[in-house]
Amino acid sequence: MIKIALDAMGGDNAPGEIIKGAVDAVNTESESFVYLVGKKEIIESELTKYKYNQAQIGIVDARDVIETGEPPVMAVRKKKDSSLVKGLTMVKNKEADAFVSAGSSGAILVGGQVIVGRLPGVERPPIGAIVPTDKGCCIIVDSGANVDARPNFLVQWAKMGSIYMESCVGIKNPRVAIVNVGLEEEKGNQLVKETYPLLKACNDINFIGSIEAREIPNSGADVIVCDAFVGNVILKLYEGLAGTLLKKIKGSLMSNLKTKIGALLIKGSLKETLKTMDSSEYGGAPLIGLNGLVVKTHGSSKAKEVKNSIIQCVTFAKQNINERIVESLKDTAPTDDKKANE
Amino acid sequence: MIKIALDAMGGDNAPGEIIKGAVDAVNTESESFVYLVGKKEIIESELTKYKYNQAQIGIVDARDVIETGEPPVMAVRKKKDSSLVKGLTMVKNKEADAFVSAGSSGAILVGGQVIVGRLPGVERPPIGAIVPTDKGCCIIVDSGANVDARPNFLVQWAKMGSIYMESCVGIKNPRVAIVNVGLEEEKGNQLVKETYPLLKACNDINFIGSIEAREIPNSGADVIVCDAFVGNVILKLYEGLAGTLLKKIKGSLMSNLKTKIGALLIKGSLKETLKTMDSSEYGGAPLIGLNGLVVKTHGSSKAKEVKNSIIQCVTFAKQNINERIVESLKDTAPTDDKKANE
Repeated sequence: MIKIALDAMGGDNAPGEIIKGAVDAVNTESESFVYLVGKKEIIESELTKYKYNQAQIGIVDARDVIETGEPPVMAVRKKKDSSLVKGLTMVKNKEADAFVSAGSSGAILVGGQVIVGRLPGVERPPIGAIVPTDKGCCIIVDSGANVDARPNFLVQWAKMGSIYMESCVGIKNPRVAIVNVGLEEEKGNQLVKETYPLLKACNDINFIGSIEAREIPNSGADVIVCDAFVGNVILKLYEGLAGTLLKKIKGSLMSNLKTKIGALLIKGSLKETLKTMDSSEYGGAPLIGLNGLVVKTHGSSKAKEVKNSIIQCVTFAKQNINERIVESLKDTAPTDDKKANE
Repeated sequence: MIKIALDAMGGDNAPGEIIKGAVDAVNTESESFVYLVGKKEIIESELTKYKYNQAQIGIVDARDVIETGEPPVMAVRKKKDSSLVKGLTMVKNKEADAFVSAGSSGAILVGGQVIVGRLPGVERPPIGAIVPTDKGCCIIVDSGANVDARPNFLVQWAKMGSIYMESCVGIKNPRVAIVNVGLEEEKGNQLVKETYPLLKACNDINFIGSIEAREIPNSGADVIVCDAFVGNVILKLYEGLAGTLLKKIKGSLMSNLKTKIGALLIKGSLKETLKTMDSSEYGGAPLIGLNGLVVKTHGSSKAKEVKNSIIQCVTFAKQNINERIVESLKDTAPTDDKKANE
């Protein structure tokens, strides 16, 4: 049984959608056990709405909630009885294999590092967002944790992202590329120019060179390496542009009677197609390189993304990914653990 | 009459589509005169295919071509008889009001600065790409010229972008925003954190704060300020993702007889809708802040984009934008002209 602590109070649609996601997950994945962390009476009342195997869901009472606007460091330090701090502490104490939250990104990042801690050798844990492509999906590392990055961070992310894609998504020998403004080796900003030769020298990853952002949705690589500023721009533009295009297309389908009839005929097929480009199908974004699994889902997550994130945690926990990460970083970490944890 | 020097030899579809675009432009815009710069006999042979007013097209013979892969500085210095160097020199000598090319970005950037030169006070001319949004369009400055930028560059780009959007696109008091990973003032990488207060202090632009990439297609701002690395990622992901989504949708429309009939019914309306999200409708990307107008179109430009770029040049030249730029930068340029031109 894989035990997942779920932040029942975090996110725009908490607790309703979060709890529904937990129920859907345990009803789908028989090897999952979900601890719903949050205000007990609220969770109990929500749970009465559903049918599920009671041996797969537990409640951990937490009286406090960290809000999105709060300064993360202070919030994590002060709100010991928050669902976020309690859930992370369960991972630290090995009472849970993973923690999933749609709450404050900043607090999850800070709490993940401070409470759960880094794996030996990991300098800066990245957030690895999985985004859909025309033939499947790819991982963007880092998509949100470290906006000003150093070359050796990106090298570690390339290795960790490769392990993730191979173990969790089942892509053999995943193609690693660095986001760049052109394909030639001399192109790029200072960070890319310094990182490129380091990636090229790694013989434990399948580095294929630079990738232009145009080729990301076109399945140009499996592991997309960049600093978190660029990664976050990619992730958010993906969501925004897909949303805007679909809104426009829907509008054009409703423009007159002829198109409305046409829309009825294509509806089913179009829906199936668009599902393949929906990032919530891929669950949340793991914070990779921690001494336990922490997954951040969108603040706007609905039940589907919560459910998929829980199922993703089961896969992750079964694959012993962290052992592989520690092994792969043995030679790369220039700083000792003490320094890396400063 | 606005005179435009057009690089007939630059780009993936040269000379055919380029020359077709020139013909389409003069047939649409009676105030345009296009100099086709390139190998005379090739241009003459292409022109025999079309009908147009002969008083609106001229040929300037240039025997050399700068290829995409060539190191730009060397190419511009050595290939004096290339279409690119000749066209830019015409702008410098005021024989042409503008130069348009689908050729090597690097060579256009270098040539623009070395041959045409910067306006007084301009530190680093940005490329301003116009991208479609759900309600119109916005400009991304910088979308390709300066990958490692300094805060004062971004402040200048905000001002220049505002003038461009107001004068050329007709947006009153354009909303300026800086690309960021969140909306709070303390968010961002080093560059954004340093630039934000400078933009906030400008009282000649309508600065509305940070913008997350998600809101760019959603018409969140009119002038989008960022370094050229981020800007290029935005521009290319826009193209790539729109292309991938449309490919998928087309595939789903062709999946069976029912959807094929549906596709016929929605075709016209969908095409009209997608046209509004097609960046080639907006012409090329101007290199703003030069002592003359230089416009870079996509390497893959077809006639439509070339035509729209030429028409865009006519609007630009008529608006005396450069005078407004020099005026607006009077107080911002910390370096003297000599230093700025080093």
